[in-house]
Amino acid sequence: MNTSAPDDSVGIVTPLLARFDEPLLLSCGRELSSYELAYETYGELNARRNNAILICHALSGHHHAAGYHSLDDKKPGWWDECIGPGKPIDTKRFFVVSLNNLGGCHGSTGPSSINPGTGQPWGPDFPPVRTRDWVLSQARLADYLGIDCWAAVIGGSLGGMQAMRWSIEYPERIKHCVVIAAALKLSAQNLAFNEVARQAIESDPDFFSGSYQSHASVPARGLALARMIGHITYLSDNAMANKFGRDLRSGSLGRGEEAPAEFQVQSYLRHQGSQFSGNFDANTYILMTRALDYFDLTLDHNNDPVSAFRNASCSFLVISFSTDWRFSPQRSREIVDALIAADRPVSYAEIEANEGHDAFLLPIPRYLDVFNAYMQRVGRDS
Amino acid sequence: MNTSAPDDSVGIVTPLLARFDEPLLLSCGRELSSYELAYETYGELNARRNNAILICHALSGHHHAAGYHSLDDKKPGWWDECIGPGKPIDTKRFFVVSLNNLGGCHGSTGPSSINPGTGQPWGPDFPPVRTRDWVLSQARLADYLGIDCWAAVIGGSLGGMQAMRWSIEYPERIKHCVVIAAALKLSAQNLAFNEVARQAIESDPDFFSGSYQSHASVPARGLALARMIGHITYLSDNAMANKFGRDLRSGSLGRGEEAPAEFQVQSYLRHQGSQFSGNFDANTYILMTRALDYFDLTLDHNNDPVSAFRNASCSFLVISFSTDWRFSPQRSREIVDALIAADRPVSYAEIEANEGHDAFLLPIPRYLDVFNAYMQRVGRDS
Repeated sequence: MNTSAPDDSVGIVTPLLARFDEPLLLSCGRELSSYELAYETYGELNARRNNAILICHALSGHHHAAGYHSLDDKKPGWWDECIGPGKPIDTKRFFVVSLNNLGGCHGSTGPSSINPGTGQPWGPDFPPVRTRDWVLSQARLADYLGIDCWAAVIGGSLGGMQAMRWSIEYPERIKHCVVIAAALKLSAQNLAFNEVARQAIESDPDFFSGSYQSHASVPARGLALARMIGHITYLSDNAMANKFGRDLRSGSLGRGEEAPAEFQVQSYLRHQGSQFSGNFDANTYILMTRALDYFDLTLDHNNDPVSAFRNASCSFLVISFSTDWRFSPQRSREIVDALIAADRPVSYAEIEANEGHDAFLLPIPRYLDVFNAYMQRVGRDS
Repeated sequence: MNTSAPDDSVGIVTPLLARFDEPLLLSCGRELSSYELAYETYGELNARRNNAILICHALSGHHHAAGYHSLDDKKPGWWDECIGPGKPIDTKRFFVVSLNNLGGCHGSTGPSSINPGTGQPWGPDFPPVRTRDWVLSQARLADYLGIDCWAAVIGGSLGGMQAMRWSIEYPERIKHCVVIAAALKLSAQNLAFNEVARQAIESDPDFFSGSYQSHASVPARGLALARMIGHITYLSDNAMANKFGRDLRSGSLGRGEEAPAEFQVQSYLRHQGSQFSGNFDANTYILMTRALDYFDLTLDHNNDPVSAFRNASCSFLVISFSTDWRFSPQRSREIVDALIAADRPVSYAEIEANEGHDAFLLPIPRYLDVFNAYMQRVGRDS
């Protein structure tokens, strides 16, 4: 057991739960009569209430972004590299709010919650949620916390899409928007990978059309497959080559071997898959991938991102990573080009990094430097 | 019904079956006491028997490479773009042999064949087959057909790996080696995709550890998933964007929609998956992906491709495609660099093509021109 958290950690944190009894009208036309959002906060809200930062999570993320739930935790929150005293999102200066999105499976109301109408888990009947619904529910959370305007809304990947949605839905409530490793909308290839992941889950006989909870069942194999597919897209070809190459875990590629050799990359993927399927809800995975599929910042604006961003009034930081092939630098440049054409202030950094999409979670020096420099500015003009 | 095949087609072809009763010792140490190979031939073997060309197929290929089995066929063989009168592999000049590899599921002995020792289908007990075993069985087929030396051995993808293996295992039996969209060995990312495909099949409850035939069952969902995953890697991001974009087949991404919208790319993938699972054997798919995983031309040569290619004495043509990310141009340049260092004659063309790995099957003008020009040379020095 550790006796204390590292000095640059936010330390021990406790998840909180906010309950909302005002109905939430979703994009699909259905209403949630009440819902709960699990969240954590790091740092202190100042007297002027203008130092608050919202962290939006990615596909499989949650509210536990920094610090430790107990000193026994082996790992800190998922973005501990970027959130903490002296880190880019400096908790000595900012009040950081990180939530589990609606439809999630880590404490917020979602498919595994009880449907008050039936007394049973929602399961597949949980309404589809879109990015704009998340932003609306996050605005309610801001109201609940007494935050009129975020100093910044920040997210990577699907989180960056939420941040962009904030910039055009609530221009008066966001000063800075930080969009990391994201895109204006998914490509056909992105859609294809999501489809195969969902098919893997839905074709698992333990899925029971999404009603696995009422069958006391878990579509673990399908969920593991979905995660393995996703995981390949988070890593660059090079990163995989450097990390695993063609190293064997057992067996041999020589002659006279009958049992299949096992490559390190195979056992790594299987481990990732089985870990994930023990910790994540299949209906949530489907819901989140659909929110990704549907996301299109330009849809209400004649497919024109420039027109979309004309609704924004905040400043932007856009960051991409050279070997990210899920949301490549080209996709970030589309965002930047549209922001420039819409006359919005934007800083852009394309970070050389070997790690693919996953780079946004890693302590890459130039990434942290750029992020940190921009956040100094967020501090100054708040 | 058509009344005739196109003029540049080899026309109506009939698959043949060669039976071998001399035992085949496989790399794994096990022996097949007898086996059959399904094959087709196009063109005429000349009197000097020196105009024969071997076509090696890729992961899901088979012996039907060109022409039609009947005038009712909607599609010709899988490489009809390149094989026929006046095409790069010109059947007016060459005698073309195309077989279904051992372990296949289109007529050659494989997991769905009867194991003579038990009277039951081999299923998962069929011995693992490696690229060198295919080359050995192809050499037996050459003996059977009275071909001492191939004018060329030609293949794309896994077929290119067999062609390279030929060049170093039987240097005296091959004059030209044409390696298209291949690699010296799989990368970690290649291995990862194969692993997920196998996991998809093996975790299908209808797989029964490979004994699905004796359970009168087919792991159709797993096989469809495997194909969908593979299919994404055959197409470039750009090709998918051009072909499907974010076009919808049904539904809408607008508000007020509850039923999930269906993107064109989703239904395309599902269609590809379900078609494939009706036509391919799951154990064969596993066997073929493992042969790919194991393939490493350098393994017996201290991981040095230059040393491996010093055993070759033929000439080489290597072709890659700019947007192929399964076996990228970089992987072909590794082959070319090693051939040059080994002082082997090699021509290399990197073809600008939008279609990704699939480009090797398509009639891309510069590709056909380069291929055709090289094959003129094959004609001359045979």
